[in-house]
Amino acid sequence: MTLRIAVFGENRHEKVDPKVQEVYPEGMHTVIADGLRATLAADGIDAEVRIALLDDIEESLSEEALAETDVLTWWGHMAHGDVPDEVSERVVRRVHEGMGLIPLHSAHYSKPFKALMGTTCNLLWRNDGEEERVWTVNGSHPIARGVPHPIVVPEQEMYGEMFDIPAPDELVFVSSFAGGEVFRSGAAFRRGKGKVFYFSPGDQEYPVYRQSEIQRVLANAVVWARPEEREAAPVKIANAQRDWFRDGAVDAQGQAVTRVI
Amino acid sequence: MTLRIAVFGENRHEKVDPKVQEVYPEGMHTVIADGLRATLAADGIDAEVRIALLDDIEESLSEEALAETDVLTWWGHMAHGDVPDEVSERVVRRVHEGMGLIPLHSAHYSKPFKALMGTTCNLLWRNDGEEERVWTVNGSHPIARGVPHPIVVPEQEMYGEMFDIPAPDELVFVSSFAGGEVFRSGAAFRRGKGKVFYFSPGDQEYPVYRQSEIQRVLANAVVWARPEEREAAPVKIANAQRDWFRDGAVDAQGQAVTRVI
Amino acid sequence: MTLRIAVFGENRHEKVDPKVQEVYPEGMHTVIADGLRATLAADGIDAEVRIALLDDIEESLSEEALAETDVLTWWGHMAHGDVPDEVSERVVRRVHEGMGLIPLHSAHYSKPFKALMGTTCNLLWRNDGEEERVWTVNGSHPIARGVPHPIVVPEQEMYGEMFDIPAPDELVFVSSFAGGEVFRSGAAFRRGKGKVFYFSPGDQEYPVYRQSEIQRVLANAVVWARPEEREAAPVKIANAQRDWFRDGAVDAQGQAVTRVI
Amino acid sequence: MTLRIAVFGENRHEKVDPKVQEVYPEGMHTVIADGLRATLAADGIDAEVRIALLDDIEESLSEEALAETDVLTWWGHMAHGDVPDEVSERVVRRVHEGMGLIPLHSAHYSKPFKALMGTTCNLLWRNDGEEERVWTVNGSHPIARGVPHPIVVPEQEMYGEMFDIPAPDELVFVSSFAGGEVFRSGAAFRRGKGKVFYFSPGDQEYPVYRQSEIQRVLANAVVWARPEEREAAPVKIANAQRDWFRDGAVDAQGQAVTRVI
Repeated sequence: MTLRIAVFGENRHEKVDPKVQEVYPEGMHTVIADGLRATLAADGIDAEVRIALLDDIEESLSEEALAETDVLTWWGHMAHGDVPDEVSERVVRRVHEGMGLIPLHSAHYSKPFKALMGTTCNLLWRNDGEEERVWTVNGSHPIARGVPHPIVVPEQEMYGEMFDIPAPDELVFVSSFAGGEVFRSGAAFRRGKGKVFYFSPGDQEYPVYRQSEIQRVLANAVVWARPEEREAAPVKIANAQRDWFRDGAVDAQGQAVTRVI
Repeated sequence: MTLRIAVFGENRHEKVDPKVQEVYPEGMHTVIADGLRATLAADGIDAEVRIALLDDIEESLSEEALAETDVLTWWGHMAHGDVPDEVSERVVRRVHEGMGLIPLHSAHYSKPFKALMGTTCNLLWRNDGEEERVWTVNGSHPIARGVPHPIVVPEQEMYGEMFDIPAPDELVFVSSFAGGEVFRSGAAFRRGKGKVFYFSPGDQEYPVYRQSEIQRVLANAVVWARPEEREAAPVKIANAQRDWFRDGAVDAQGQAVTRVI
Repeated sequence: MTLRIAVFGENRHEKVDPKVQEVYPEGMHTVIADGLRATLAADGIDAEVRIALLDDIEESLSEEALAETDVLTWWGHMAHGDVPDEVSERVVRRVHEGMGLIPLHSAHYSKPFKALMGTTCNLLWRNDGEEERVWTVNGSHPIARGVPHPIVVPEQEMYGEMFDIPAPDELVFVSSFAGGEVFRSGAAFRRGKGKVFYFSPGDQEYPVYRQSEIQRVLANAVVWARPEEREAAPVKIANAQRDWFRDGAVDAQGQAVTRVI
Repeated sequence: MTLRIAVFGENRHEKVDPKVQEVYPEGMHTVIADGLRATLAADGIDAEVRIALLDDIEESLSEEALAETDVLTWWGHMAHGDVPDEVSERVVRRVHEGMGLIPLHSAHYSKPFKALMGTTCNLLWRNDGEEERVWTVNGSHPIARGVPHPIVVPEQEMYGEMFDIPAPDELVFVSSFAGGEVFRSGAAFRRGKGKVFYFSPGDQEYPVYRQSEIQRVLANAVVWARPEEREAAPVKIANAQRDWFRDGAVDAQGQAVTRVI
């Protein structure tokens, strides 16, 4: 089955900041989407990658559009507040139903990620163009497949601990920076029927998303985060009669009970 | 130092439901508070237990009152919607700052718990007065100290899986019910600087909070959830200059930098 | 790439116990292997399933044979002590290198599982032919794909908590039994570069491995446990020179350093 | 109750290596023990700290001596192989019974730690006297109480990822080194009824154990790792009769059943 990916980009720095325009003249979203397309194609994975922008968010992340999205990557920074609450709630609901979410870099502060974490998602930061080294700390995780140890990002904004997130279900990467800080830069979470992978390398001022190793991580992440075959609905709240789960049980309407989550 | 506990009670079933009035004529909150007082006193722990009701929530869970609360237990059911959003947000913020939170039974659906979890917190349920057996699955956890294996609750509402919460940081208890369902009934989470322990046994129609084993769990839980000695503030978001953490470093105002979370 | 599976069977009860011969005249290993073949074929997965018995363990789990095994399922009970220590150590080493291991039922007490856990792996048990209900507690785990909630096993030996294992990295299933006990019956662990999934339903006296839902779980588990594309060697111990990980770095022999785990 | 601590020291480098004699003329064990005594006394904790050396290991870690030990800290490096297998097995068994274990630095390769982990415990290393910064990544953990963020160790041996341990139950500290590597330097595990806290800062050639912040961590760790009030025996393996856990149940000998883990 085709893996249906949406790449959400805020696309605001690209409009107003000459430095960003120089690094990402085509927009970060384009570079992220192209990297996914190329890497997934090389892996022989049948995938469709579309772009969703803040400017068209009501359509590109509409109820209908999200219903046909398996995994959503999310880059935002200066305009988190411009994402309508309803859209964020819709995204969260779709994660509960099974959609994968890959918040990138400054999306630690995006509305849907914060709502899914239940914490402040605060951190230390410094924009000083420092070397970042991304170390794998999980020897068998599919998201670390084919990734050098470490990935070296020549110049990057520093993100440092204490990063105020719940303990990840699986910690995949930890970064160090030239200035000495560390950061849990690749962190996997399960929420409802959906999977979330936060990945911090990537910033509007540095060509991080052009690095093939970073594109490899993103491709691995969307494959990992794709929904399992399940009904696309949140886990149920239900009043269950005694013996509802035994063969032959019927519900109040006389219908056979289906035993699914 | 005195452990300052607030016992939040919705106190609505007690006003309108004859069955509940029979089981808890003094109100569930009174039984919970008395159990904590007696059990903590037997342990030689210096504790103050106050009651906070939905009817006085603006005062009893005011900014000032919460600032002087180390651990908050929370029982609510039929009136979750009557808890003002601002109060819920205040409670969440205090957890981020270090306050312990002990959501009880139907508080799986309370506003602050849902906000801290980031999931639907849905579950199966059936009110059929079934035996519940509460099994310890963590051999070294302080919340399971002095607790029989299993605790037998003669009659209780059934709560069953799939319980839509994030995987607990520490799973302490798992329950089975006479009807065959299972439930992760004792689940510990860390959020920001605070600790959360969800404990499901306890319902308005059954005298569960009168059982000494249940009182033992609650007393263990409030001790476990008390804040560590730290500044009562959320984890910082901060722009950090290079070398800020080395001896002699000063901040932009020339002040010595303090290295705390 | 072909998924190479070995199904290890102790095959002793089958030789000496009439009740077991009646339930599994062809041997449990044959039923497990056939179930894997059929289920994986239905999923379109290219897999080879071979059988390895205690009687031929030196060959069937030799260094060479294990080197060509991606995932090993393990059923043992009355003859754990007859597994040579060297074979167990070899299996453990292969897990560290990336091989998947699926210990089944009484293999909770097998040598390689105990060595990988570092705990006693003790539990409660009772052979009383009780109904077991296997509940999914992880809404997005691939091992729970296509599995009813709950799986009902009409008759089964009871395994009960406290099960003395480390907290699983991912808890997938929890069972209840007619007698009231609960058990963490599906538990996923990562060790080195390898994955381990312990699954308890299945006993020599009951036709559990003939149930299609159980076969579905086993097929899901071997797919989950297959090694990621990595060098098949344990995580390195190495003396690392400064800057070894930067472009152009060479080792003591003047060779380019490879940055792999 | 008095907290009974044993500080195990290999005490071999101290005998043969002039550099180590200069840094730790009184032996590392003495500095560790004195630090624990002073820090615990300042906290008002009733503790007894004794020293156990490799030279007297048969007595100092005898069955009897271990039975009266609540928490054991362990430093070893060049003579791991000289620790008798029986002593290591005894230590592991005592952890299963509830004793706390605090393996320090090169004890990542000690027999009891490896047996409790079930992995190779391999890592990268470099002895180049580099600055280490120990960052707290868990905002509410008692082991991080009163600890600066980060702890700066001016000179230290580098330990780097991939550190081949199971994912810790709780990750408390992550270190970076001047050379760019990162390391999970403070990792908490539960095994059976016991707790294990691995802490890597500390090496024979650098006066790390003389730093008050490091002494603070060790004091916090022994308090966290002290056994809960429970029977000092491993989790049981037992054949359980139906209804054994209900009031009035008796065992095969007609004795009342006790419901403990």
